[in-house]
Amino acid sequence: MKQEKIFGNWINGQLVHSGSQHFSTFNPILDQPISGRFIEATTEEVNYAAESASSVFFEFSKLSGDRRAEFLERIAFEIEALGDDLIQTYCNETGLPEGRARGERGRTLGQLKIFADEARSGSWQKPSIDLPAPDRLPLPKADIRKVMLPLGPVAVFGASNFPLAYSTAGGDTASALAVGCPVIVKSHPMHAGTSFMVASAIVKAAHCTNMPNGVFAHLNSMDHRVGQQLAKHPLIKAIGFTGSEKGGRALFDLASQRKEPIPVFAEMGSVNPVVVFPEKLELQKDQLVQELSDSIMLGTGQFCTSPGLIFGIDGVLWKSFCFHLGNSLAQRATQSMIHPNLKQAYNHLKDERMQYAELTSLCSISEVNGANQVGQTLLQMNGEDFINNPDFQQEVFGPFAIMVSCKDWEELERAISCLKGNLTGTIMATEESISSRPSLVEKLQNKVGRMIFNQVPTGVEVCASMQHGGPYPASTDSRFTAVGHDALLRWVRPVSFQNFPEMMLPTALQTKNSLCLDQRIN
Amino acid sequence: MKQEKIFGNWINGQLVHSGSQHFSTFNPILDQPISGRFIEATTEEVNYAAESASSVFFEFSKLSGDRRAEFLERIAFEIEALGDDLIQTYCNETGLPEGRARGERGRTLGQLKIFADEARSGSWQKPSIDLPAPDRLPLPKADIRKVMLPLGPVAVFGASNFPLAYSTAGGDTASALAVGCPVIVKSHPMHAGTSFMVASAIVKAAHCTNMPNGVFAHLNSMDHRVGQQLAKHPLIKAIGFTGSEKGGRALFDLASQRKEPIPVFAEMGSVNPVVVFPEKLELQKDQLVQELSDSIMLGTGQFCTSPGLIFGIDGVLWKSFCFHLGNSLAQRATQSMIHPNLKQAYNHLKDERMQYAELTSLCSISEVNGANQVGQTLLQMNGEDFINNPDFQQEVFGPFAIMVSCKDWEELERAISCLKGNLTGTIMATEESISSRPSLVEKLQNKVGRMIFNQVPTGVEVCASMQHGGPYPASTDSRFTAVGHDALLRWVRPVSFQNFPEMMLPTALQTKNSLCLDQRIN
Repeated sequence: MKQEKIFGNWINGQLVHSGSQHFSTFNPILDQPISGRFIEATTEEVNYAAESASSVFFEFSKLSGDRRAEFLERIAFEIEALGDDLIQTYCNETGLPEGRARGERGRTLGQLKIFADEARSGSWQKPSIDLPAPDRLPLPKADIRKVMLPLGPVAVFGASNFPLAYSTAGGDTASALAVGCPVIVKSHPMHAGTSFMVASAIVKAAHCTNMPNGVFAHLNSMDHRVGQQLAKHPLIKAIGFTGSEKGGRALFDLASQRKEPIPVFAEMGSVNPVVVFPEKLELQKDQLVQELSDSIMLGTGQFCTSPGLIFGIDGVLWKSFCFHLGNSLAQRATQSMIHPNLKQAYNHLKDERMQYAELTSLCSISEVNGANQVGQTLLQMNGEDFINNPDFQQEVFGPFAIMVSCKDWEELERAISCLKGNLTGTIMATEESISSRPSLVEKLQNKVGRMIFNQVPTGVEVCASMQHGGPYPASTDSRFTAVGHDALLRWVRPVSFQNFPEMMLPTALQTKNSLCLDQRIN
Repeated sequence: MKQEKIFGNWINGQLVHSGSQHFSTFNPILDQPISGRFIEATTEEVNYAAESASSVFFEFSKLSGDRRAEFLERIAFEIEALGDDLIQTYCNETGLPEGRARGERGRTLGQLKIFADEARSGSWQKPSIDLPAPDRLPLPKADIRKVMLPLGPVAVFGASNFPLAYSTAGGDTASALAVGCPVIVKSHPMHAGTSFMVASAIVKAAHCTNMPNGVFAHLNSMDHRVGQQLAKHPLIKAIGFTGSEKGGRALFDLASQRKEPIPVFAEMGSVNPVVVFPEKLELQKDQLVQELSDSIMLGTGQFCTSPGLIFGIDGVLWKSFCFHLGNSLAQRATQSMIHPNLKQAYNHLKDERMQYAELTSLCSISEVNGANQVGQTLLQMNGEDFINNPDFQQEVFGPFAIMVSCKDWEELERAISCLKGNLTGTIMATEESISSRPSLVEKLQNKVGRMIFNQVPTGVEVCASMQHGGPYPASTDSRFTAVGHDALLRWVRPVSFQNFPEMMLPTALQTKNSLCLDQRIN
């Protein structure tokens, strides 16, 4: 019988596995464990990773943007070189279709290239120069210059729902490496094999581009110990996380209670409210049914931007819309969740929700065709009940949404005012009808990070104007984005230099401006 | 006998004082209480202030930048109109000299004008536009635009050491109002009269420029109750604080433990390390003695940037420098602290420090000429002892510094590596000698917000390139500054608009760009 494969932890350019605890991943379609043992990182190994990262921080952060860009581009190259083996492992560990795996890989490679370009351009350093005024009265003004510098080693936590784009070499890692922060990834245990392959590609890329070994580490862990240790480690200076509100909040609490608190960028729960105007339903009800039904089912609802609350004004048209959306969902084939644990969590929360007398069912599928599939669910309630109970705002991770029928606009706007923070807020309306409700727009934009007009919230464009992050609990810090070019601003802080000699200034601040940056002067 | 004057709380444009607790301020020079009763804000009054602020948030944030600029300029005008009464009250309540009061008023008016200009220009909104690409494959790209929007009502805590520039109408308040955040000030109890006068000027300015009443509130409080209630209040969305590490950390903890955590910008303890190179001493020892002695004594050492740790390489030159700096300090007249409580705290901490066997005295004045004066103190220790005990990094608020004599550069760099976060790091050197120690510069800049070459750390220029804030415990969020134009970035967050009709976009994002902003396009 073949020996089971052992997967260690990548630390300081080497594979180590001194621990005795291990775990395996799971194929949700075949409903069986996948062969292979992932060895949990030990306390000593976590320390070793943090010390290695810290010891190379200056060296790595001092490299030219070109050098870091080469590293990021090489990571993309090495991930691509993993070929179909990576796609196969991804699909085995998640049950997601191959097309999704390929699409997500494409996005991940694209992100690496965007951050390589950012590293090369150096514009994130935002150089600002105040020239001296030695003759100013009553006091002379000194030469003062300001630039962004990296925070230090960063811990990144893999996300269950995006094994590539938000995990090992995803946006958090790519943006942190771009600005010169070494990265320690705690891989997500549900797709530890995919993560290990990507980590190996990063280690190879680091080696090929002559990066210091400590620049990247990859730790296996199924329980909370490794994550907690990273969050509390004095050498770790920031945290990137995508996942549940409970997990993100636990990390935030640990990091805030440190002797030296550190920033936690946790992108967490979101129910992504959608407001549907009667005028829109009059024109495009069938199209809306199709679009929203697609959006709710996308990735079995395991998207952070999945629409979970749909608000409208009660009436014949709204009732018909609710009915047809329920029907449309009911006619779709059920799909698999990424892992049995997520299936159980979904069914548990869904069943709990269906106990509420306030909710009635529009679609509730109980028969599924695979071990880890779940039934899509559409419920309905009235606005007043929604306003009176914040429980209905709790995310049910999976293909689940609630139609909130408001008796009039006053009630609908009150419901919007009661919302907790969300990643997105969508308005389905005509241009004329939205312009008659400026206060609704105002209230909704106060609760979200991204406002959307007549498009579904699923699908997050990776671009400079993207804000992926919103008021709590959508994220722990609404002032930063997890997606798009500005994601790298999470890992830097400004430092001023007063009266400094030209040759001792960071290159971005030198008057000769050899990087040709856009220096803000006076 | 004349009835004692009653000072209420400014809430929603009115003076209220329903509470029964009250306190007075104190003249540290005359060593006696100042007549007048400040009525503590009640729990209901704090709620009323938060509700009033929240209820006008949309209205205030929607005003044009011009309108908010007029408000800020009018505040400056009304403060100036308080004339010498304000200067007199300031001096009575702090014991600081008139020149300082006038200088600080000038800076405060200057800050209000800077933020008025920022409000008018609107550049803080940082509009970013990604144009759509409807033909892109495999998926079309939507029109996505991003802009900065205000967070909501902000609580500002008055600072003991800067009654004007960091308090009621100081940088926190001015920057928050500039971006459209209503402000609730908890005045500092040591100069509640100065604060009340400035608050009255703000209320008058709000009235004259037709601002909504809830835009500003001013609460008296001597105990911690009002501050705690503000930090925990669900309608408060951010906090600005300048003061002790203990006070700032308490607010940070309260705010982090909220159901919805909010950002706290606390600018706290800093000992502002100075590294003196032998090459500099050779050339300009006497000038350095003069400059550092002035800097340590400035404002009786009650500056957040007061130099508290001075590092050098042991030897004849260094010993002579230490001796002369001690002598220079010893020859100066003692000065008054702002309040008897600060005097007591200083004497307590200083005495505690002098118990350490590791420390020897270079200057220790015990005879003072006024009730609330303190003796300037200069101590000396060796580098190894400094490295082994973090207690010596604790701020002693007042005219206090420690000379750290290192046996060589290796020890000095290790000492710098052990530093906690600080606002500033100063290097006194020749250009040649600093350029031979790049690793020292690197280590120091990793610990501070502002690097200074051959100038003293006291004196914070209000300009675009200023970073006033550093790694913890210098501030709770090193990614933001409390001084200078960028201080307003603390109160805003980015929001994206996807596929939005031109007329429903925030003005800064509209294609017609009527504000003539520098829009980042694609």
